[in-house]
Amino acid sequence: MGIYPKAIDRLIAEFSKLPGIGEKTAARLAFHLVDAPASDMTDLSDALLAVRDKVHLCPECFSVTDGERCDICSSADRDRSVICVVENTRDIFAIERTREFGGLYHVLHGAISPIEGIGPKDIKARELIMRLGQNDIREVIMATNPTPEGEATAVYLGGLIRPMGIEVTRLAKGIPIGADVEFADEVTLIKAFEGRSPIA
Amino acid sequence: MGIYPKAIDRLIAEFSKLPGIGEKTAARLAFHLVDAPASDMTDLSDALLAVRDKVHLCPECFSVTDGERCDICSSADRDRSVICVVENTRDIFAIERTREFGGLYHVLHGAISPIEGIGPKDIKARELIMRLGQNDIREVIMATNPTPEGEATAVYLGGLIRPMGIEVTRLAKGIPIGADVEFADEVTLIKAFEGRSPIA
Repeated sequence: MGIYPKAIDRLIAEFSKLPGIGEKTAARLAFHLVDAPASDMTDLSDALLAVRDKVHLCPECFSVTDGERCDICSSADRDRSVICVVENTRDIFAIERTREFGGLYHVLHGAISPIEGIGPKDIKARELIMRLGQNDIREVIMATNPTPEGEATAVYLGGLIRPMGIEVTRLAKGIPIGADVEFADEVTLIKAFEGRSPIA
Repeated sequence: MGIYPKAIDRLIAEFSKLPGIGEKTAARLAFHLVDAPASDMTDLSDALLAVRDKVHLCPECFSVTDGERCDICSSADRDRSVICVVENTRDIFAIERTREFGGLYHVLHGAISPIEGIGPKDIKARELIMRLGQNDIREVIMATNPTPEGEATAVYLGGLIRPMGIEVTRLAKGIPIGADVEFADEVTLIKAFEGRSPIA
């Protein structure tokens, strides 16, 4: 706009770079901070710089950590023979909240997408194969998203891993708990039929 | 949660303090920055500190500025005999976009709200009265919001200003352009009837 003071315009521009933050929301955030105590801006700035300086990828699973290795990789309580492969770090935390999975993870940092020009070399695929070769792994659970990209990634990696004598599995697809059959999309319904199981 | 690295938890907490940003959105923003180039965090941090250090209130109208006085107060092209009173700085920019108003502004930084314990002393009311006393003002346009708080503020300030021999006006209330009469609320409809004008 150029009608705000330059420093505010710049802060709005920086907020606008964040996902899901349009120019109007960015302006609301910037003016909130202008009216808030100056310490709020200091605190947010400090928090940003702490993440920039302290957080890095775990060299083993490529999750985020502020230690040498991540908490999961350095834990003695995890089953080191099962690796759950996810697209993004946040998927790990979603799965951890279930307290169901006790193995290790591997973060690909993306999924194969020919349309977007993202190939196996652009994700942590080679690192996964190397890791599987160097460790005694029994099963790899492909927990990539049920999207064309996530499927392509699971199929591609599965094709590389199975010949290594490692079992490769894929998360079940179906109707989410609490959802309505009426409103489920066709592909999900087809997957739900395919994956149907006998009532116990 | 405490399941993320500490630095990320702290950044999520800081983002969550912003209006309209819940914990999930804050986590999305934080992880976006973790995956983005480190310069993105540096740039946002720099922008925050620039606002903290450079932006302050205009001593005349209490809008925001990075200069001594704001652009509007220091402009030679504005009608200095009319003051438009608004609750927040952002209202100024909304009005400026119309290019209709050529006078000066006064930002109250709030509105009177007995329920929230906000009285005349908590907003820039005394500063407005002093300013009116020291300058040759013809009209004060009350552009506070058409809410109970904005109305109370307009009525209260009007009662102080009118005895000074200054005309006090209030922005028109009615059905917004493009809206549907069918969906207008009752109070807006009543105000629209009260404020009806002959068809030219």
